[in-house]
Amino acid sequence: MDKIKIGIIGAGGYGGCGAIELLYAHPHAEIAVLLDKQDIGRSISDLYPHLKGFCDLPLMDPDDPAVPDDLDAVFFATPDGVGQQEAGGWLEKGVKVVDYSGDFRFNDAHSYEAYAARIGRQQAHAAPELLPLSVYGLAELHRNEIQNTSLVGNPGCFAVSCILGLAPAAKEKLIEITSIVCDAKTGVSGAGKKPAPGFHYPARYDNMNAYKISGHQHVFEVERELSLLAGEDVIMTFTPHVVPVCRGILTTIYAQLNPGISLPKIVDAYRSFYGDDVFVRVFGPDVPQGTANVRGSNFCNLSVNMDDRTGKLVVVSHIDNLVKGQAGSAVQNMNIMFHFEESAGLMKPGLFP
Amino acid sequence: MDKIKIGIIGAGGYGGCGAIELLYAHPHAEIAVLLDKQDIGRSISDLYPHLKGFCDLPLMDPDDPAVPDDLDAVFFATPDGVGQQEAGGWLEKGVKVVDYSGDFRFNDAHSYEAYAARIGRQQAHAAPELLPLSVYGLAELHRNEIQNTSLVGNPGCFAVSCILGLAPAAKEKLIEITSIVCDAKTGVSGAGKKPAPGFHYPARYDNMNAYKISGHQHVFEVERELSLLAGEDVIMTFTPHVVPVCRGILTTIYAQLNPGISLPKIVDAYRSFYGDDVFVRVFGPDVPQGTANVRGSNFCNLSVNMDDRTGKLVVVSHIDNLVKGQAGSAVQNMNIMFHFEESAGLMKPGLFP
Amino acid sequence: MDKIKIGIIGAGGYGGCGAIELLYAHPHAEIAVLLDKQDIGRSISDLYPHLKGFCDLPLMDPDDPAVPDDLDAVFFATPDGVGQQEAGGWLEKGVKVVDYSGDFRFNDAHSYEAYAARIGRQQAHAAPELLPLSVYGLAELHRNEIQNTSLVGNPGCFAVSCILGLAPAAKEKLIEITSIVCDAKTGVSGAGKKPAPGFHYPARYDNMNAYKISGHQHVFEVERELSLLAGEDVIMTFTPHVVPVCRGILTTIYAQLNPGISLPKIVDAYRSFYGDDVFVRVFGPDVPQGTANVRGSNFCNLSVNMDDRTGKLVVVSHIDNLVKGQAGSAVQNMNIMFHFEESAGLMKPGLFP
Amino acid sequence: MDKIKIGIIGAGGYGGCGAIELLYAHPHAEIAVLLDKQDIGRSISDLYPHLKGFCDLPLMDPDDPAVPDDLDAVFFATPDGVGQQEAGGWLEKGVKVVDYSGDFRFNDAHSYEAYAARIGRQQAHAAPELLPLSVYGLAELHRNEIQNTSLVGNPGCFAVSCILGLAPAAKEKLIEITSIVCDAKTGVSGAGKKPAPGFHYPARYDNMNAYKISGHQHVFEVERELSLLAGEDVIMTFTPHVVPVCRGILTTIYAQLNPGISLPKIVDAYRSFYGDDVFVRVFGPDVPQGTANVRGSNFCNLSVNMDDRTGKLVVVSHIDNLVKGQAGSAVQNMNIMFHFEESAGLMKPGLFP
Repeated sequence: MDKIKIGIIGAGGYGGCGAIELLYAHPHAEIAVLLDKQDIGRSISDLYPHLKGFCDLPLMDPDDPAVPDDLDAVFFATPDGVGQQEAGGWLEKGVKVVDYSGDFRFNDAHSYEAYAARIGRQQAHAAPELLPLSVYGLAELHRNEIQNTSLVGNPGCFAVSCILGLAPAAKEKLIEITSIVCDAKTGVSGAGKKPAPGFHYPARYDNMNAYKISGHQHVFEVERELSLLAGEDVIMTFTPHVVPVCRGILTTIYAQLNPGISLPKIVDAYRSFYGDDVFVRVFGPDVPQGTANVRGSNFCNLSVNMDDRTGKLVVVSHIDNLVKGQAGSAVQNMNIMFHFEESAGLMKPGLFP
Repeated sequence: MDKIKIGIIGAGGYGGCGAIELLYAHPHAEIAVLLDKQDIGRSISDLYPHLKGFCDLPLMDPDDPAVPDDLDAVFFATPDGVGQQEAGGWLEKGVKVVDYSGDFRFNDAHSYEAYAARIGRQQAHAAPELLPLSVYGLAELHRNEIQNTSLVGNPGCFAVSCILGLAPAAKEKLIEITSIVCDAKTGVSGAGKKPAPGFHYPARYDNMNAYKISGHQHVFEVERELSLLAGEDVIMTFTPHVVPVCRGILTTIYAQLNPGISLPKIVDAYRSFYGDDVFVRVFGPDVPQGTANVRGSNFCNLSVNMDDRTGKLVVVSHIDNLVKGQAGSAVQNMNIMFHFEESAGLMKPGLFP
Repeated sequence: MDKIKIGIIGAGGYGGCGAIELLYAHPHAEIAVLLDKQDIGRSISDLYPHLKGFCDLPLMDPDDPAVPDDLDAVFFATPDGVGQQEAGGWLEKGVKVVDYSGDFRFNDAHSYEAYAARIGRQQAHAAPELLPLSVYGLAELHRNEIQNTSLVGNPGCFAVSCILGLAPAAKEKLIEITSIVCDAKTGVSGAGKKPAPGFHYPARYDNMNAYKISGHQHVFEVERELSLLAGEDVIMTFTPHVVPVCRGILTTIYAQLNPGISLPKIVDAYRSFYGDDVFVRVFGPDVPQGTANVRGSNFCNLSVNMDDRTGKLVVVSHIDNLVKGQAGSAVQNMNIMFHFEESAGLMKPGLFP
Repeated sequence: MDKIKIGIIGAGGYGGCGAIELLYAHPHAEIAVLLDKQDIGRSISDLYPHLKGFCDLPLMDPDDPAVPDDLDAVFFATPDGVGQQEAGGWLEKGVKVVDYSGDFRFNDAHSYEAYAARIGRQQAHAAPELLPLSVYGLAELHRNEIQNTSLVGNPGCFAVSCILGLAPAAKEKLIEITSIVCDAKTGVSGAGKKPAPGFHYPARYDNMNAYKISGHQHVFEVERELSLLAGEDVIMTFTPHVVPVCRGILTTIYAQLNPGISLPKIVDAYRSFYGDDVFVRVFGPDVPQGTANVRGSNFCNLSVNMDDRTGKLVVVSHIDNLVKGQAGSAVQNMNIMFHFEESAGLMKPGLFP
């Protein structure tokens, strides 16, 4: 079978690089074109020298007439606002779209608004007509819909971490749904490749901080997904932190358990929920975990615990923000959209140490 | 006025080193002797070469008859179990004692037990008769009692972080006292200088993990202090994490606000509570914080926030675990015990970057 | 074709883990058994959780009668002294051997002695009769001999870095052969997984140091190889350093250029020397390099420069010490010994960032 | 005695911050004004929150008429090009000047040119008439001249490291003066506070690289100083590297020893040369060193070694680039210029770990 042809838009960022790392050796897909607004004409392996010999395509301007249009899918590895303006054109040509940003994570303009306000976007969504067609790209929850769509809104990295850590509890009504607190710690790569004072090595190396306290935009997609699972409206507290790690999100999730819920029952519920999901692994309190265990891989490791004294569920969720939190989920979604094996190109353990 | 003479027991560890860094230039105290069970005869500046020329005393065996006994105070910079066996002898000689461990953080053998069980100590406390004499050494809460005691149990590093972040809320009944969740992230130096697999550079550098989930021993002293402030029993959830930072504890504290509590009222309550406390600084949501701001100093920076959507108090507490979380608090307690200015030897900004 | 069966001895260390990361998906080889003296009975994925699902074999005692003996090759991922005692037994059974240590890097007992003295070994080599059979496993120099041997002494990590950086200059007589200085900086993983004071995160994170100044044992194999290439005896200065990096060796190599040697001539000589060597890449001064470009991969990137003012060659050699410096070279050697494509299982770009 | 009044120009950078950390508690000097071109009106403790309560002065525009002119000295903590334009004005008012940049490290316009070319400056020096008045501010070599000047060119950070490591060898003719190679590794703070792609945490954290190979501008001041000491022209090879450390320069220095020079003789020569220099400490090969030993302090630790096999001197020089390599040397120079105790305000051990 011929490989499908993929275009990556915004290929010069970490999200584009992550997609290339997964696609250069994908059994059913090949990278056909790399698009970006910067560094036009430079080889991607000039920007990311580790890719030399694996992918040496040049970055092309999206408006360059030489951009091929016989693609099967494009990844928008772009910031908010790009996909909503350009996805329609690709979809019209029959090209499937996976967008990394928040542009297609919501199904109507109204629910998009709260999200958009949090990131300071005042404009209305540029393509509200596409929103009903889009599917939220968390494969473990929406596999069937992803199979049947051409437009996927890839989930936010924090959202992947929180939703996978809470979905079974919400679905099986293990917890008081109003009591959720998610305390997330992210590696610095989540902020992308653009230098900034807070990510400057001397300012960052022995430092940790909370930011957007009670105000991060990813909370809305988490709440929406948990509401769908629980069958009732969920409002939760979410606090992101940055720590001097490159790759990794560790989210510690707290929620009040409903009466009579025991730890074995919780672990069973989680294992049952993720029965066939190869990329989610459920552990009880006896197995030590750390984000290094998932560094470079598409896995989400969940450590499920109970605080007997306070009756709280404590789930610790571990992902690599650049893989399961971004490019890995995008490839997983692509695999589903094209009816490939869901794990094609993704079964890698990462590196340790 | 002559300087008081200080002995440091367990001087070869990070806690001893931290005390030396603060005492070598203290205006009213001098280091008279360093005791340890290891590296006997070696100069402390052999173990910690940065101290060369500042403190070159040799480590002496505590049983060495040449150990001077005309000391004014000793610091037990020792693990649990040492202070309770040896403090009595020093007290009998009229020497004041500050113990870093959990040995003297509780006032009766019964309340000590729950703590001891968590760290795997089966034995009864070796000096239960001393427990009623001991004072919990968090100066901001127990300044007056510390002035009048000869035996201080220095607080746990996580406990300092949590208690300072919650005390005003507990005292002023801003929160539902049963709803507290403390999510703490610590630098690796908190584990001391002894190498271990989890602190080996290659295993630690790009890694973060939770540990002792719902089971860390510092929770008891936090609950005791908050109960005293609130006038009712407090049970809370506490989860520690290790991140690849050397110095610093950042604790994110969540609690349900009581009805009608606004952010300005909260900030006022915190500022009022810590009115004269030079080492606690209260900030509202508008000032970005990070642990690097307190690295190397005795300050605790509190960022006070409110999550409007869920009605939660979110306080982010920042300390240097080796200073305010350990040696700095010990020196602050010593200053109070000897009626020196409380900040003597401690007014340092640390280093940045 | 059936896959060859590999046993890894000392599988629980970083060197064993590195081999597993390369072999779990190798097209022509499979891991048949993991041997170690510690953690017997535990799954390797218990020690290295990222391997879960990729390799879950238990560690077996080498003396366990259940150890299969129908292996095709074994890797001794063991410290000095193990291979020389046990390799003979495997060779007698027709099993090919790659030894990571210095045990088989020299062809006679006499030349082994200087090396052994540097690492404090007083004993004579345990299997001097095997030494003449062994081949030094730097594929770029000894490919033909490796094809025809059953016993390979895998090169030292620093030695790989130095030799690849100097071989063309030595061979083509570009430099005064007595003027070589190699200044090497290694990541901490080179010291293995055993915790030690110098690799404890708090002591290591913002620290760099030289060690074994003018006394590191890898110098002998570098000198031997360069002598062979140059046709005269080489004595050189080599200083290793540790920096707070996990993976990577950067060696800066200095040597006095012979009269009349220009930079283009040097670059040509290097490119010509490594013409078909897929894992060595030669760059001129215009392309910035860093060890991150080879992290996780089997490449050696050489930056070739000339100091016009002093007439010195300055080559900067970059490898991942755990891949090209250890397990990657071992797999490359295995591929050659079994006449597989030399790069089988090794064509990976690593991860960035 | 009244404290002298200091102005810091370019106070908002790391070099300004470093000066404030040393001057806020200086016994004989006080910070009177902070000048910068950015962040005008903001408190320095807003930029560097750790300074809160220690120095809260606002940044003022140098052209603001409210800038006091009754200063005793100014520090130009500014990039190349600023001091040469503005120093004259201050000197005319009788204000002593210490300039951090290369503007006043050379005594004539001609010798400045080679330096300037290396940093891409095409213009002639803006104040060539001041050059003969300036003194090179390495106190250990030019103490007497510094006492009698009003204009000091503070040395480059790498230059401090190299010169202190070589001065005794050059002076005492221990080495072949043409054979010097300096291999320097610097922490990232040396590049200042401005974010850039190469200092972005994800790109920097597990990475090391050489840069400006054979082309760094600090080489000229090193050569000039060594030439003065040796009484003959020195040309040397110097290669800087960046490693993921915040503070610290480690330079490994290689030179061919002259015949008959033994290690004890070398160590004696170094100890004798630095006899009364409190900030330079000479160690033989038996004492392990690392940059963490000087982190946060004004010390330069020299490890003096000999490679018997090649007859090479190997000196490892350790400084904190922001202290002895910058602000510490500036304060040391100020102390000398005002006839204070040379170590006033500088006797601090730094922090460990």
